[in-house]
Amino acid sequence: MQQRQMNLGAFFLIPGHHLGGWRHPEASAEKVLSFDFMKELAQTAERGKFDMIFIGDELKGAGNSEIGRHLARYTSFEPTTLLSALSTVTEKIGLAATLSTTFNEPFHVARKLASIDHLSGGRVGWNVVTSSMSAEAHNFGQGNLMLHEERYLRAAEFMEVVKGLWDTYEDDALVIDKKTGIFSDADKIQPLDYQGKWFSVKGPLNIARPPQGYPVMIQAGTSEAGRELAARSAEAVFAACHTFEEAREYYSDMKGRLAKYGRSPEEFKIMPGVYPIVGRTEEEANEKEALMNELVLPKLGVAFLSGLTGIDLSGYSIDDPFPGIFPDSSNNNGIKSRIEVMKGISGRENLTIRQFYEKIAGARGHWSIKGSPSQIADQLEYWFREGAADGFNVMPPYLPGGLNDFVDLVIPELQQRGLFRTEYTGRTLREHLGLSRPENQRVQAVSRVTE
Amino acid sequence: MQQRQMNLGAFFLIPGHHLGGWRHPEASAEKVLSFDFMKELAQTAERGKFDMIFIGDELKGAGNSEIGRHLARYTSFEPTTLLSALSTVTEKIGLAATLSTTFNEPFHVARKLASIDHLSGGRVGWNVVTSSMSAEAHNFGQGNLMLHEERYLRAAEFMEVVKGLWDTYEDDALVIDKKTGIFSDADKIQPLDYQGKWFSVKGPLNIARPPQGYPVMIQAGTSEAGRELAARSAEAVFAACHTFEEAREYYSDMKGRLAKYGRSPEEFKIMPGVYPIVGRTEEEANEKEALMNELVLPKLGVAFLSGLTGIDLSGYSIDDPFPGIFPDSSNNNGIKSRIEVMKGISGRENLTIRQFYEKIAGARGHWSIKGSPSQIADQLEYWFREGAADGFNVMPPYLPGGLNDFVDLVIPELQQRGLFRTEYTGRTLREHLGLSRPENQRVQAVSRVTE
Repeated sequence: MQQRQMNLGAFFLIPGHHLGGWRHPEASAEKVLSFDFMKELAQTAERGKFDMIFIGDELKGAGNSEIGRHLARYTSFEPTTLLSALSTVTEKIGLAATLSTTFNEPFHVARKLASIDHLSGGRVGWNVVTSSMSAEAHNFGQGNLMLHEERYLRAAEFMEVVKGLWDTYEDDALVIDKKTGIFSDADKIQPLDYQGKWFSVKGPLNIARPPQGYPVMIQAGTSEAGRELAARSAEAVFAACHTFEEAREYYSDMKGRLAKYGRSPEEFKIMPGVYPIVGRTEEEANEKEALMNELVLPKLGVAFLSGLTGIDLSGYSIDDPFPGIFPDSSNNNGIKSRIEVMKGISGRENLTIRQFYEKIAGARGHWSIKGSPSQIADQLEYWFREGAADGFNVMPPYLPGGLNDFVDLVIPELQQRGLFRTEYTGRTLREHLGLSRPENQRVQAVSRVTE
Repeated sequence: MQQRQMNLGAFFLIPGHHLGGWRHPEASAEKVLSFDFMKELAQTAERGKFDMIFIGDELKGAGNSEIGRHLARYTSFEPTTLLSALSTVTEKIGLAATLSTTFNEPFHVARKLASIDHLSGGRVGWNVVTSSMSAEAHNFGQGNLMLHEERYLRAAEFMEVVKGLWDTYEDDALVIDKKTGIFSDADKIQPLDYQGKWFSVKGPLNIARPPQGYPVMIQAGTSEAGRELAARSAEAVFAACHTFEEAREYYSDMKGRLAKYGRSPEEFKIMPGVYPIVGRTEEEANEKEALMNELVLPKLGVAFLSGLTGIDLSGYSIDDPFPGIFPDSSNNNGIKSRIEVMKGISGRENLTIRQFYEKIAGARGHWSIKGSPSQIADQLEYWFREGAADGFNVMPPYLPGGLNDFVDLVIPELQQRGLFRTEYTGRTLREHLGLSRPENQRVQAVSRVTE
């Protein structure tokens, strides 16, 4: 029997996850809105046999002008349009887009994802997020961000509607018989007639069922509500775990929650984020890290840390100890889990303000690793073998350099150990991830009634 | 001085505008969800030097199962994802997507169109529609379609917000100076802070101003409200005119409305839809038409006519005279103009039910022409020279055959007459259409205040 292998996502934040990454000599910051650059990145990830490209998203522009001027991330392609374009210049790699359930309509989301799944021959994933910032609500006519609990209830209903819309077409609904003039079998295309708390959607959808049945459902939440939603409906999770212990706890907790929804552990892939600094040697990796730390302007680092922790740091010197008194996070309506991770770091380590922001300037609370290719592979292998991960969502510090390093140095090491594929064996993202193709639930329900 | 030339759009309704077009031997109906087929069509249109590909849209699936089974148009790619993909396999041709202002959010629309404009190097057009069917409302939690007048008021505000969002970035807002760490000039990225009747949107957008400033604004309305909205804010209109007289009246009326908005006639391109049946000879064109008429199942033809006219035809025989008693269209909340066109046809010609549906089965109320390449060119030239059109939106009966015919037979004839370009001279859709690049209105307003 073949050895169990990792699944890997290439998480693109253009032009890099590190706050100062865009300033790195091997970052193409000036190409942030160049399709040719996106194509180069996608083809590099495909050369590395990644399961998927993963695109995060926020529905807001640069908020604070003093800090905003130093941040590269507030001008970027919109995920569904970008992935549609990338589908034409890649052949096998999956394409995962982040789309918010708080600020979208299920009909649009179902249709667009189905459209890209058809364009790409079944390579789409949907990273389902509820959005966490008031600034996002303000772009959609909402004075306040909907409450955390409400957002998760809406997300659950949203996903139900979207899956229902995909199921309005049976897989073999299209007949396309020129002779008889029958284009589709009308009995196999049915309205949804959904009436819920948040949504009322008649259907049917105006595109055939996606090649994958449903695009792969991905989530990232680690709050209690987020975990339950993921256990119920996600097929891959991209969690922020800062330490092995956190990751193992999360892994075991999540796999344990599946049974009550009638799901098996194999149908649920846990892929924590990992932020790797890769050198040809350990020394080179250390040098890279030092260079990146230099690239973060102190005022940017302090503002970033303040934003992630919710602590006002304006009265402190940068080399003062980090004041670990967090505001009450039960009142926080944003990403609850991120604050918990920050508390964890603060509690475990005695850091100055500068040391703290340097620690999170790339990984933002995700797992951060550094070293030679074999040292990186050792750390990934440990998490993978010891019950903390089924794979990883790789967050390159800067692009294209950080991705090239991972593909050219780390992937061959993982392949040599038998931990990662050397060729794609499947054609769809589901096949890459080892997930089965979902049955049409509407048809299943009808056949249960008829039996 | 160079002779005035036509602008041409290639209006793709996959796999053809004619009701029975998908059954034609030269239609690739089985490829309705094949990207390779879309690529072939787009590249053919670009070979023909069309100004743009134009994709219509409805936000609903097949409604009536008995009729729906014969219709090809209810399973298709979603426009923004399709055009994003096509941007990568074309170089010059414009890409116009239909997006509804009734069932979308301005932030999403502004962002997606900007994203495709960046992906394509400035080739995007937005066909602004208000949507006209209750079945669309039912997919978005609305029991009834918003009233015609309200839809147009909302559309006007929607466009204002979208343009405002594009203007939140000045053209030179991105600095990207690795040395100083300044990515963007914060003074050149400002919130929108829009508060209106329909929308409240803070901004800024999260993508730089589109290469074209604004994607080209296209509309199709011919009702009074539609005409005013177009005169105020559209740069190209795609109108349904069945006869030369209608078209000339429309042309003259629309060009006349521009002055009160401070606009010049050159900044407003009138491109009526035209449905061409092209043969190498007149005889061949007649044969093609006869074949297409045979391909319409009578029950489909009757249902289609009934739908477009609002008249119940169930009590009639197919060869009975068409009963020209229309319902009161002032109560109609859908496409008002379409009903008027149908009344016009009914009033001018004594048609049986069969003859009527055969007449509109392809053009759906648009201008229908037929003949050899020189006959087709004569008719287009007449409208173009006699004050009825600046160009045309070409509606091929079936795809790819009908598009190939137009590109291989008609375009060379137009080129020979000096009526159409032989090479692209511009790079953006604006340049193809001879439209200037809009200034940033926010900056303009600020400089007016400062003066």
